[in-house]
Parts: sequence; structure tokens; C-alpha cells
Amino acid sequence: MSAPLVVLSTDFGVGSTYVAQVKGVLLSACVELRIVDATHALPAFSVRHAEVHLRGVAFAFPLGTVHMVIVDPGVGTQRRPVAVQSRGMFFVGPDNGVLGQVSQAPGAQTVVLDRTELFCHPVAPTFHARDVFAPVAVELASGLPLGEVGSPISDAQSSTLPSIFATSAEVCGETLTADVYGNLTTNIPAQAIAEDWHVFVEQHKTRRVATYGYAQPSELLALVGSDGYLEIAVRNGSAQQRLGASEGLRVVCRKVA
Amino acid sequence: MSAPLVVLSTDFGVGSTYVAQVKGVLLSACVELRIVDATHALPAFSVRHAEVHLRGVAFAFPLGTVHMVIVDPGVGTQRRPVAVQSRGMFFVGPDNGVLGQVSQAPGAQTVVLDRTELFCHPVAPTFHARDVFAPVAVELASGLPLGEVGSPISDAQSSTLPSIFATSAEVCGETLTADVYGNLTTNIPAQAIAEDWHVFVEQHKTRRVATYGYAQPSELLALVGSDGYLEIAVRNGSAQQRLGASEGLRVVCRKVA
Amino acid sequence: MSAPLVVLSTDFGVGSTYVAQVKGVLLSACVELRIVDATHALPAFSVRHAEVHLRGVAFAFPLGTVHMVIVDPGVGTQRRPVAVQSRGMFFVGPDNGVLGQVSQAPGAQTVVLDRTELFCHPVAPTFHARDVFAPVAVELASGLPLGEVGSPISDAQSSTLPSIFATSAEVCGETLTADVYGNLTTNIPAQAIAEDWHVFVEQHKTRRVATYGYAQPSELLALVGSDGYLEIAVRNGSAQQRLGASEGLRVVCRKVA
Repeated sequence: MSAPLVVLSTDFGVGSTYVAQVKGVLLSACVELRIVDATHALPAFSVRHAEVHLRGVAFAFPLGTVHMVIVDPGVGTQRRPVAVQSRGMFFVGPDNGVLGQVSQAPGAQTVVLDRTELFCHPVAPTFHARDVFAPVAVELASGLPLGEVGSPISDAQSSTLPSIFATSAEVCGETLTADVYGNLTTNIPAQAIAEDWHVFVEQHKTRRVATYGYAQPSELLALVGSDGYLEIAVRNGSAQQRLGASEGLRVVCRKVA
Repeated sequence: MSAPLVVLSTDFGVGSTYVAQVKGVLLSACVELRIVDATHALPAFSVRHAEVHLRGVAFAFPLGTVHMVIVDPGVGTQRRPVAVQSRGMFFVGPDNGVLGQVSQAPGAQTVVLDRTELFCHPVAPTFHARDVFAPVAVELASGLPLGEVGSPISDAQSSTLPSIFATSAEVCGETLTADVYGNLTTNIPAQAIAEDWHVFVEQHKTRRVATYGYAQPSELLALVGSDGYLEIAVRNGSAQQRLGASEGLRVVCRKVA
Repeated sequence: MSAPLVVLSTDFGVGSTYVAQVKGVLLSACVELRIVDATHALPAFSVRHAEVHLRGVAFAFPLGTVHMVIVDPGVGTQRRPVAVQSRGMFFVGPDNGVLGQVSQAPGAQTVVLDRTELFCHPVAPTFHARDVFAPVAVELASGLPLGEVGSPISDAQSSTLPSIFATSAEVCGETLTADVYGNLTTNIPAQAIAEDWHVFVEQHKTRRVATYGYAQPSELLALVGSDGYLEIAVRNGSAQQRLGASEGLRVVCRKVA
């Protein structure tokens, strides 16, 4: 049974007029709908950043929640609009990898949105969020089954996040994104390494701590982030600034000899 | 019959304390009220940018919606606070042009907000959004007729958006604002020109496409934006950056000889 | 009697994934809950800025509202998580000064959050907003009395805002923060000085006005801000830019001789 909640995650920008246009369509279709702003400041065009965001929030909401995840540089081209049902949640967005993690999960079902009668017409080729994804999101939030909004596909675009390389004594991964504090998240799940392993980012050895405040200011830290992945941080400072980058920094974890 | 929806579009800034103060007044007056954040990141003091924003969202919401549009450099001076009813929607804001398009529309009615007993007292001269516009917005959202919140006027401030210059073979306009991707919107309605006309921005010829993804990266494009106006863009890039400006760039459309 | 409203003020950043994680916990615990975004763009780690923000919004909402105020550089260390009840409102956050003003107010009660069975387990040491403050906020919003979420304390951290120095002929204070327009708020309550006193910021004499529009562009102004404190501004310009700083500028008010 669906909760009438739609969560919006977009790269529209906080000053954008597109956010309100999407909300207008949602509320015009269902005035009782409850809209949750996750963020409208995902970096423009960055599918990878959107995936990291979704990793943290996909299953945080009540069952039946519909996520609209809109980072869509290929809008209006042959890239397919899709909807995914996974673990009692729904996700709508472009088939460019932003939904890769949820569509690849065991038991997930993906459909291509080909029920064009559900769309807002005329469909603007540059704004599927408003004319394709929003009306479908309302239908799903209102209880229409996944199979009624599109046709099943099995070749949905995979996640664009890089894989880790792991042996019994070493795990190699990389930093993915920075948050506003300059903390860097990675693709290394905390459970992939033991608590006493050493963590290096590029040529720097880090100190492993449970939380920021237990380190000296300016020390480079490795800790388990709140999303369950290894995180690189500096207490009351910015690891991003310290290391000069946010993504693609090599992170190596080594078993103590 | 009014929907109890108030949509907020302001230049308060995303880190602002003013946003919550306005929401507090709205919810204190009517705890059931539903508040929609359109944006709080309109450029400070820019009436024109607010107008372009409103062009896209004014009629996107359910009938009875009340828009608060707050870009108000003259707050507390002789500039009048007004409310407009147009096509079943309500708009409250300063009479400085932000509401020019909706108040000039056929059938629109505008009143000056002179029912001071509706305001929150004492009225801070620097914060009419909180003390004048918010309480009036709640009344309108709750069903009070326009005529009960003020007295009719017929000399409301016109739109500050520049006009286009059009002949049967040429239409001249200009760019107005950039979105977060660097796409530039203009004052040229798509229907003012034919699909095969050439479009130039400053000295550059553009390629006309239906959507971004059908162009080569870095190519300068002209397309019909989702708001129905001509838009200048670069695929997966920023036309704003490429052209070095967002507003006031000359756009010329010419019939093919 | 509680209104089921939770107001969020955080330094998570507008592009943050943390905002949605907190909202997910809130809505999962109480799907009817109404969440109000005050701001997610408080400057990172700045307790003082959060206090100035709260000064303006703490009592703006309906009785029973719960504020989550999250600027928490010491998250997960010995700094205590607390809740405050003051004038019919509730506040949850870290005991680092962000709640100093409300906890010091006459009649306010403060408890340390030691009812760990209310938390979301496992509690991430870096994300108490999600795992400690959010679940407690829901309980308070749903009507659980303050005494049921923690144990009374009387040594809560005081406000970190600087005091003013006042004689019968002079009041000295300082600027605290800038808003998006570059207006600077101060720690000098309007009622601490008379309307005809001279106001100096650093070496500059200001002009006293009721609102921005009554000054010449670029003139340095002193006026009573909408929060009841003295404010330094420049008409249609930025006092912050003009003075080269936002906080710590010395403000001196002198009785006319």
C-alpha cells in the first residue's frame, strides 16, 4: 500500500524555476500529495554524484515512497525513461545509471515508461522531469502498480560507480564525492575491511577514528561514514581542500602485517 | 474555491533566516496551510530574473494557489504592496514589476494592500514579506476574496522585461537569465519564428535542435525551451560560460532567404 | 498540546544527502509529520551563526513546534545531546551553545538525551541528527513530555554570542553575520539605544534610516532590523562588501552631545 510521498533529488539548482514547475505538475495531479525536497543541488550532469546520494537515501523513507531522481543530460534523446520497484520503494528517472544500484538489487523490477497517455502533453523534449517523470511518479504514489506505467526490461543501465579491488590483505578503492564539510566518501564498504587495517589516501597515511572530534585538528582521518562506507575527513576542516580533489583519489586499505 | 497552497519565490538566499520567519507567520495563522518552496535563491534585487521565474511557474499549480513573489529592494518605501488575481491564481508581492506579467494579463485584477488590520503589527519597514505579504497570502489561500484584502488599482507597475522587435523576416530579442546548466533563456516566444529560421546570438550562428543531446558537445544551440521561449545552450556545457554573459546578449532570428 | 511540526535548521549544505536521511527517519517514524525546511545552508561548524538564525525564528512557529538545530562539529564526542522546552516550543540539538539563548531564557527546561531506547540503532557516531535528534524530535512533536526524553540538567552550554558593553551614553557591540544582501546584523538590541543616537561601524559614521530605500545608493546605513537588532546596510548594495567583513566589526552607538 502506497504512501503518497514523492521525494525529489535533482540537479536543477536551488535558484531554478524547474523545481516549481515539477511541483506544480505533481500537485495539480494530486493536491494531497506530499512532496519532500531531498536536494536540488546535485552537481549538474553528474550521474555518479546522484548515485552516491541515492545510496544514502533510497531506503530511508516509508514503504511506498516514490523517488524522482533527475540528473538527465541526455533528456529527450534515445535514453529511456524508466521506473524501478525495489524493496517496496519506487524510483523514476532516466536510464543513464542514476538508478543503477536500485535496479541491480535482487528482486528489483524495472519498466520503460512507454505508457505515453500518462504523460503531460505536449512533452517538452528538454524537460521530461515535468512532462514524463512527474505524472508517472504521481500515479505510482497513488497506487498504480509498476506494470501499469511501463513495460518490463532486463537491460537497464548499470551503476556507473567504480568497483573496488579486494584481496584478503588489501582493498583498493577511490573517493567519490565531497560533502559540504569537505568530507570525502568512497566506494569501500566498511565491512570490507577490519577495524585495525591501515588506510592510505594517495600517499598519505590516515588515522582511524570513530568520529571527527576524537582527532587533532588538521589530522587526516579515516572513519566509517554514516552511510556505511569508508570516509576520509579532517577534523573541523576540509579533506577536499587538504587533498586538492574530491573524486578519484586512490584509497588503499591494508591488513596490519 | 481556494486550495490552501502558498508558493514561495524569494531572493532571501538559501542560508537566510527570513525564509523561516515567513513560514512561521504562515503556519501560525493557518496550521493546515501547505507551503511550497519554489526557490529562495532568486538573484538579490533582480526584478527581471523574478519575472522570468514567474513566467514559468505562475500557472503551474492548482487553481486557488497563492504565490508570494518577493524581490523587494524598495521595501518600506512608497512602492505599493499589491495582490493580483489572474486565471484563478493569486499573487502577492511588491508593485515593482515582479507581478507585471500577471497583472497585465487579460481579465487580471490588482488591488493595493491597504487593509492594514490584516497585517502583523508592528510592521517592520524592512520585512513586508513577513508582516504584510504573508498574512495577506494566508487570507487569500483561506478563501477571502481579492476585494477584501485591498482596493482596486489600474496603474500597477508593468513588466520590466524587454520587448522583442519583429518584422515578417526577422525577430530581434535578447537573453534574459541563465539556469544552473548555463542555458540562456530569451524573450522570444517560440511561435514568433518558424522552425527553419536561422538564429544568431551576438555574432555566432547557432544550430537548431529539439533537445541538447542531439548536438555535438560544445556546439552552440538554439532550441525551444520548456517554457515556450527560445533558448541558447551548449550540450553538456554552459552557453553562459561560452558567451561570457547571461543577460543582454542580442539574439537575432532570420527567415531563410 | 503539540503541533506535529518539525523545523529543520542545519549546516548540512543544500546539496547534501544528509537532509533527506533525516527527513526519512522523521517520516518513517510518523508519516503525518509536517517538516519545515528553515535552512540547510548555515555556515559549516559556525555555532554563532546558528544562534543568530535561531534568534529570529525560535518563536515564530505555532506552539508545540519542535526545532532541530544541527551545527555539530563535536558530534559523537562527549558533548551532550539535549532538548529544551521554552515558551511552549521544543528544541533539540547538541549542547554546544546553539541552544544557549533558548535554554537560558526564564522558565526554560533542558534535558540531556539519555533515553537511548528512543534512538535509531546502531547510532552512527558521525550522524546524531539522524540517529539521535530526529527520533527524539518526532517523539516531542507527537506529544511525549520533555521529561520522558531525557534527564534534567542545569549546566547547559551558554550562548556563544558576545555581550554588549553599555553606559548611559554609549553602547558598544559588534557585527555578527551577513545576510544574502550583505546586510550585517549585530548584537545590539534596538531598545538599547535612542533613535537619535549616532551609530559608527569601525571608523565610519552611518546614516540612521527606517528602511533601505530611504537612503542614497552606497550610503552606509544603520537601521532596526526585522529581528529587533541594530543592522548595518547599504541601499541596493552590500555592507559586507563595503566593509570587507561580516563578523567582528566594532559598532559604537553614542548619545548626541
